[in-house]
Amino acid sequence: MYDRIKGFRDFYPGEMAARRATIDVVEETARGYGFREIGTPALERAELWTDKSGDDIVDELYSFEDQGGRHVTLTPELTPTVARMVVAKQQALSKPIKWFSTRPFWRYEQVQQGRQREFYQTNVDIFGSSEPEADAEILAWAADALTGLGLTGEHFEFRISHRDILGGVLESYDTDLDTDAAIRAVDKSDKLSQVEYHDLLIGAGLTADQAAEFADLIAGGDLEDVEAFADSERVTDAVENLQNVLAAAEDFGAREYCTISLETARGLDYYTGVVFECFDSTGEVSRSIFGGGRYDDLIESFGGQPTPAVGVAPGHATLSLLCQRAGVWPEEEVQTEYYVLQVGDTRTEAARISRDLRETGHVVETDVAGRSFGAQLNYADSINAETVVIVGEQDLENDEVTIKDMESGDQIQVPVDSFPGDLERPTIDDFE
Amino acid sequence: MYDRIKGFRDFYPGEMAARRATIDVVEETARGYGFREIGTPALERAELWTDKSGDDIVDELYSFEDQGGRHVTLTPELTPTVARMVVAKQQALSKPIKWFSTRPFWRYEQVQQGRQREFYQTNVDIFGSSEPEADAEILAWAADALTGLGLTGEHFEFRISHRDILGGVLESYDTDLDTDAAIRAVDKSDKLSQVEYHDLLIGAGLTADQAAEFADLIAGGDLEDVEAFADSERVTDAVENLQNVLAAAEDFGAREYCTISLETARGLDYYTGVVFECFDSTGEVSRSIFGGGRYDDLIESFGGQPTPAVGVAPGHATLSLLCQRAGVWPEEEVQTEYYVLQVGDTRTEAARISRDLRETGHVVETDVAGRSFGAQLNYADSINAETVVIVGEQDLENDEVTIKDMESGDQIQVPVDSFPGDLERPTIDDFE
Repeated sequence: MYDRIKGFRDFYPGEMAARRATIDVVEETARGYGFREIGTPALERAELWTDKSGDDIVDELYSFEDQGGRHVTLTPELTPTVARMVVAKQQALSKPIKWFSTRPFWRYEQVQQGRQREFYQTNVDIFGSSEPEADAEILAWAADALTGLGLTGEHFEFRISHRDILGGVLESYDTDLDTDAAIRAVDKSDKLSQVEYHDLLIGAGLTADQAAEFADLIAGGDLEDVEAFADSERVTDAVENLQNVLAAAEDFGAREYCTISLETARGLDYYTGVVFECFDSTGEVSRSIFGGGRYDDLIESFGGQPTPAVGVAPGHATLSLLCQRAGVWPEEEVQTEYYVLQVGDTRTEAARISRDLRETGHVVETDVAGRSFGAQLNYADSINAETVVIVGEQDLENDEVTIKDMESGDQIQVPVDSFPGDLERPTIDDFE
Repeated sequence: MYDRIKGFRDFYPGEMAARRATIDVVEETARGYGFREIGTPALERAELWTDKSGDDIVDELYSFEDQGGRHVTLTPELTPTVARMVVAKQQALSKPIKWFSTRPFWRYEQVQQGRQREFYQTNVDIFGSSEPEADAEILAWAADALTGLGLTGEHFEFRISHRDILGGVLESYDTDLDTDAAIRAVDKSDKLSQVEYHDLLIGAGLTADQAAEFADLIAGGDLEDVEAFADSERVTDAVENLQNVLAAAEDFGAREYCTISLETARGLDYYTGVVFECFDSTGEVSRSIFGGGRYDDLIESFGGQPTPAVGVAPGHATLSLLCQRAGVWPEEEVQTEYYVLQVGDTRTEAARISRDLRETGHVVETDVAGRSFGAQLNYADSINAETVVIVGEQDLENDEVTIKDMESGDQIQVPVDSFPGDLERPTIDDFE
């Protein structure tokens, strides 16, 4: 007997039906905003990450050498791939480019609740607009997707910031700082003790006093305080941009879900502007549900024309945890409308009825295992069939079939020629 | 600039929309038969293939050692994975088990038309029935999926055989034969010259005369000739089973697409009974479009209870070639119903209208890039918007917006309060 690999999941039909229903809502919401689906490869050259990304993600790559000697990796996220695709057809694509896709990604991480080594995300990105409306549309889409799943403002919040606020405040220290390291420290701060957090900031180049002061200022989250402290154009511009995004989000219906949180930094180095993370409002799901933000420099660093970009990628594992906790996860049940039961040598007629019912769009099963009446009825029950059509030899001699309602147990004989006839969805009620 | 890896494809929105429409038809057809969707991992232990499968597939594995020292592989096909899943929950699953899924697979092969290293398949399997009706339901589903895409019997045919016909005929030779090698030779015979084909048969243990005789008998495809030649219970049973499957396929509406073809063998070693391949009737797509068959021994060899099984896996690359050639490939066009155009400071009202239209299920875009009237109208045209709603400052002062039909160019002013109002899909016609 073979086992599946740790961190990789099998989805049996009940759970898969719930996942599919969830993905459908998320994708339909994206289509409603005019995002277009794309398809992307599972493997890329490893350099797409080793050249540009933070160390964390590089350490977690499923990378290897293929038979042609290429250094390749299972993709740990989508952003470098969509950036590569934009660069490849930049002239031909009308802007703004609005894309979405749902697919698995892979990272060799510690397996824990809500985090597998194979995980599904729906990525949604806009390329070609630096306007605050683009950031706000990403937030509005994310809010609509979550409310479309039945969640409300009681269940989730978007914590939002701007990379240049942290960057600008750090810049205002007149010392030789490793800014990326300091930002990564802020990003991790909710998982660290105060001592650990301050130590990381000191490691990045702040003094102990500066580290304490900086941590307090950021935790305070007051935009005016931050502007006054930094007294720099960079921070003033960032605060203004953040406020503009929030104003657009107000128009787009997403402002009510947003909280300013300057500790929100996002771990990936390529973010440049507004960044945000979605959290469980109750704190029961302690990690962020998903995150996103602006990455205006990535396309150019991949060799393309300068192209602003903003995106988000809800993960379906954490999303399902949030939905389950909120009591809005779809019921895990298979649904079959008709089971056509054969008694004796009635396959030809049973097959005709099955095909007719399927042609009007119904889910229809019939016996493919040569089973008894009782075994078939049992199976029909196990697949939650609503109506069983019993096609028996004796009934057929009288040109009849029996319609059985599986909820009430009632049954009735009807002329075989009139079933299903022109009826869209015939039930016992149509014949009583 | 980074390149994608050879044999891996990017799908931009136009092409992706056509693929999605095709996958939707194929999956909806499976749902109609009561097949349930499952989700499966991209990585498995390499032993799932190295222990059981033919050499060809093992040579093509994208296998590597993961960070935990596991010998893993990108899955080259789904069958061992679903077999593993059946074994893991065999007692809990009600039989027959009917599963489907659409996802990519990976093989390090020569890249050519219709064959990439990453390729998508929809796998459809039935576990737990050895009856001919199960084989026939797989054929019927495949036929319905293809006709659902607009294809007809003029475009495709199913070439069908039974593994025990070849096996039994080979057994009737009183020599020490490598049966698997001989079957693989038959499977490849249409790609080989007669000399190469006979040489492979001789390599498997036949004499030159026997090889010629065997090749003629199989090419003839006459079931009575084959039965008479072999004169064995095994071949007689196989012929009877094949005929029973074809009779059930007649009832299920798929017989008309089936041709008996004893050269159809399927390369994979795990097949045990009926096997079939789908071909382009015109021969323009020379390789098989897809194949399938019965694999009754696999579950037991994976440590499960003996469980008969039959399945098929249409590949979407070859399927799209077939559809394109037949002129039934969906049009590659993005579709947007409404573009809400902002002139001046009208974002709040434009956003309100966009949200109202989206709530009734429409695809709606509005400006997120701060563009001029002309640039917005140009973009609306590029995304094939049917109706443009122009929200201008002056119109708004009169409590009006302008509705523009993008096909005729006609436009009309309507009260802003009545748009979209209660209308399901308001167009210019509703206001003229």
